[in-house]
Amino acid sequence: MEITGISSAENGRRGDLGFLDGDGKSTGSISSDISALVVNEANRINVPDGIPFLVSAFPRHVHSVAAGILFRARQLDWGGEELVSPDSVIDESAKLAPGVVVAPGAVIGAGTFIGANAVIGPGVQIGQNCQIGPGSSIQCALIGDHVKLLAGVRIGEAGFGVMPGPNGPEDAPHYGRVILQDHVTVGANSCIDRGAFDDTIVGERTRIDNLCQIAHNVVLGRSVLVAAFGGISGSVKVGDGSMLGGRVGIADHVVVGEGVSLAASAGLFRDVEDGQTWGGTPAKPIRQWMREVAWLQKNSNPKKKG
Amino acid sequence: MEITGISSAENGRRGDLGFLDGDGKSTGSISSDISALVVNEANRINVPDGIPFLVSAFPRHVHSVAAGILFRARQLDWGGEELVSPDSVIDESAKLAPGVVVAPGAVIGAGTFIGANAVIGPGVQIGQNCQIGPGSSIQCALIGDHVKLLAGVRIGEAGFGVMPGPNGPEDAPHYGRVILQDHVTVGANSCIDRGAFDDTIVGERTRIDNLCQIAHNVVLGRSVLVAAFGGISGSVKVGDGSMLGGRVGIADHVVVGEGVSLAASAGLFRDVEDGQTWGGTPAKPIRQWMREVAWLQKNSNPKKKG
Amino acid sequence: MEITGISSAENGRRGDLGFLDGDGKSTGSISSDISALVVNEANRINVPDGIPFLVSAFPRHVHSVAAGILFRARQLDWGGEELVSPDSVIDESAKLAPGVVVAPGAVIGAGTFIGANAVIGPGVQIGQNCQIGPGSSIQCALIGDHVKLLAGVRIGEAGFGVMPGPNGPEDAPHYGRVILQDHVTVGANSCIDRGAFDDTIVGERTRIDNLCQIAHNVVLGRSVLVAAFGGISGSVKVGDGSMLGGRVGIADHVVVGEGVSLAASAGLFRDVEDGQTWGGTPAKPIRQWMREVAWLQKNSNPKKKG
Repeated sequence: MEITGISSAENGRRGDLGFLDGDGKSTGSISSDISALVVNEANRINVPDGIPFLVSAFPRHVHSVAAGILFRARQLDWGGEELVSPDSVIDESAKLAPGVVVAPGAVIGAGTFIGANAVIGPGVQIGQNCQIGPGSSIQCALIGDHVKLLAGVRIGEAGFGVMPGPNGPEDAPHYGRVILQDHVTVGANSCIDRGAFDDTIVGERTRIDNLCQIAHNVVLGRSVLVAAFGGISGSVKVGDGSMLGGRVGIADHVVVGEGVSLAASAGLFRDVEDGQTWGGTPAKPIRQWMREVAWLQKNSNPKKKG
Repeated sequence: MEITGISSAENGRRGDLGFLDGDGKSTGSISSDISALVVNEANRINVPDGIPFLVSAFPRHVHSVAAGILFRARQLDWGGEELVSPDSVIDESAKLAPGVVVAPGAVIGAGTFIGANAVIGPGVQIGQNCQIGPGSSIQCALIGDHVKLLAGVRIGEAGFGVMPGPNGPEDAPHYGRVILQDHVTVGANSCIDRGAFDDTIVGERTRIDNLCQIAHNVVLGRSVLVAAFGGISGSVKVGDGSMLGGRVGIADHVVVGEGVSLAASAGLFRDVEDGQTWGGTPAKPIRQWMREVAWLQKNSNPKKKG
Repeated sequence: MEITGISSAENGRRGDLGFLDGDGKSTGSISSDISALVVNEANRINVPDGIPFLVSAFPRHVHSVAAGILFRARQLDWGGEELVSPDSVIDESAKLAPGVVVAPGAVIGAGTFIGANAVIGPGVQIGQNCQIGPGSSIQCALIGDHVKLLAGVRIGEAGFGVMPGPNGPEDAPHYGRVILQDHVTVGANSCIDRGAFDDTIVGERTRIDNLCQIAHNVVLGRSVLVAAFGGISGSVKVGDGSMLGGRVGIADHVVVGEGVSLAASAGLFRDVEDGQTWGGTPAKPIRQWMREVAWLQKNSNPKKKG
């Protein structure tokens, strides 16, 4: 058997190595094409018949080590003094301010402007008529047309995932990309992490303010608005046209419908259906939150109690 | 009639094009010198006699398109490989670390130090004895003397404003500047956005911690302290000597008096008068907030109720 | 008497100048080796016999001025056009992407990769097999082996400390370092400030997410996890293996034990003992917080009251 690739257990194809960890009680679907699995003891019973497997106390760690043998991360294997790689493709109508670094394999479309000292990483593709802010950096990403990134934006860094390893916690490796669709705007010093196996996706015309965090595998719909300090945890989905006020946080895997409004400072831990307005921490329907706030104020006040 | 400039309806001068949108019920003052307006149907009745006007479903969009025809944003019209433009003016006692980019029209005063890989944008003026951190970027700004910007600060990016356009939400354009008065300090990776039409202003000796967001058109007084993750929304005013604890958020257009204290984590949605101390979300006078916290704790606890 | 150094009153050695300010009621220990002190009136009585002293209305200001005469901050006394200083020591197996700036006195270990346009400040030491993200900056720091800093990280900027001066508030000067032990990971655009006199320390295998703020003199133990927007104020201590959810804030000087969990959005103002789980703002034991949330919801709801 020859292992030629790395994948999640769910999306594995022939030649891929996947893994299963956790308590073994809720394994998702497992691809029937996958060539092999690394599993912990608890998941030994979940391996489909006919798929070869290794057992390890740290299956994701083993999986990650295998990935490190098969592949060398492009963004860490690149050097030299030439700011703009001769192996990049830059449209002649694109404009680069001084100090811009463009890595091998990067593609920059017509009419796009790259601000001073920005970094376009290996293999990154940027569409037409984009504006990339000074001092920003883009890795592992596919950027549409008319996208604006303001200064200091960080696209495509690895997400925050910790897995157990033989010597203590380790960073879970990331293989996905960031996809920014057309007409997306991202504010200064905001961060959008690449996906773990799949991609992190920001839909058309969505607008993100300064100092926001969009974690791995998030999917934002079209025309979503995220105000400053918005924090969207891993694998969250937000539907088209939803609006997040300043400092809204959403816990991982939460699903927010279309046209939802979340009031400033909301901390959301549950799914929200289309069209609703929620606020507070933990967030609840806005009228309920406002009623609680008013009731507490009234009842705790000795003068107004009687 | 010749249109030579762009302005708000309130501050227009001869030659300027302004706009009116919204529901038409509360239009501010309209300059009698302005040469023309673009308005939506609801504001047709608000156009003063004698001022020519166009009607559009998207007046601010039309206004923005007109601006794009009249002007080309300086910070997007600049390239080349020369890190320090020969069209900049740098005092001979100023010191630039390696990798610094200085754009055409920038001015840097005596004794100022610019950290490595910082970007000083077109037309930016920096006073004397300033310290500009590594990797920071400054655009559309006027910086006084003895100003310190730590690493990664973002000055003068466009604010977060969304306006309706024929194809969905668009970014509201920004024409204002950032003005940092003497002896201001701004912490690492903090952001101060340029004003929409007017300027964003930070008063003398005001100190801003790391990872803060100061939105468009904010006016901070003198000796204001803003601790980490402070978030000050658009058009907020904060009086001299006020102190904001960590993670304080202030909703847009709120007016905070002089000598006000806002406790860490406060989320402020209302004006606060001079000298008061507020806390909580939504914020209220600190004694009231602490009373509510204590009352809730006591009454919700079955053991301590009786 | 000759003054050759600067220190806190507590840690002063022969030749050092220290200071005492505040109301004079709770002075910590004062080194018997210190050569001189600057004190305010209230602290005149606290000067140990035999130690010469100056009295000033602004002792820390005077102390800071003396420091400025004795020393010139290395990170502000450095220029030129050469991106990589010939006075740095870079292992031949280390790899630098384009645009990297390495200052005089910096040391970079074997197998370490420095991302494009990153800045390694004067005297910074980086160990082996580290990954330093694009656009990040490091000053006044000692970095272990296998450390990962993602893009835009800011290590070693001065902390947020304000002291009174003759003309209004001034920035308290910082003389300490940042120490990142082996296998630490720091997320994109996060900031770790240098200590005031002592060092800021992050323990082995600790992992910090994007957009976090670690203030001056913080000491994080081993394998601590800090999720996005974590804000840890000055001089906080966090024990080994503790976990901070998203947007957790900790007030200055708080001590958090080992194996503590703080729920997302918690605002912690008190010490927490080993193994506890707390949540809410102000934070309290999680069961108590959840009980309060449930009780308030139930009692404020007119339909469910009876």
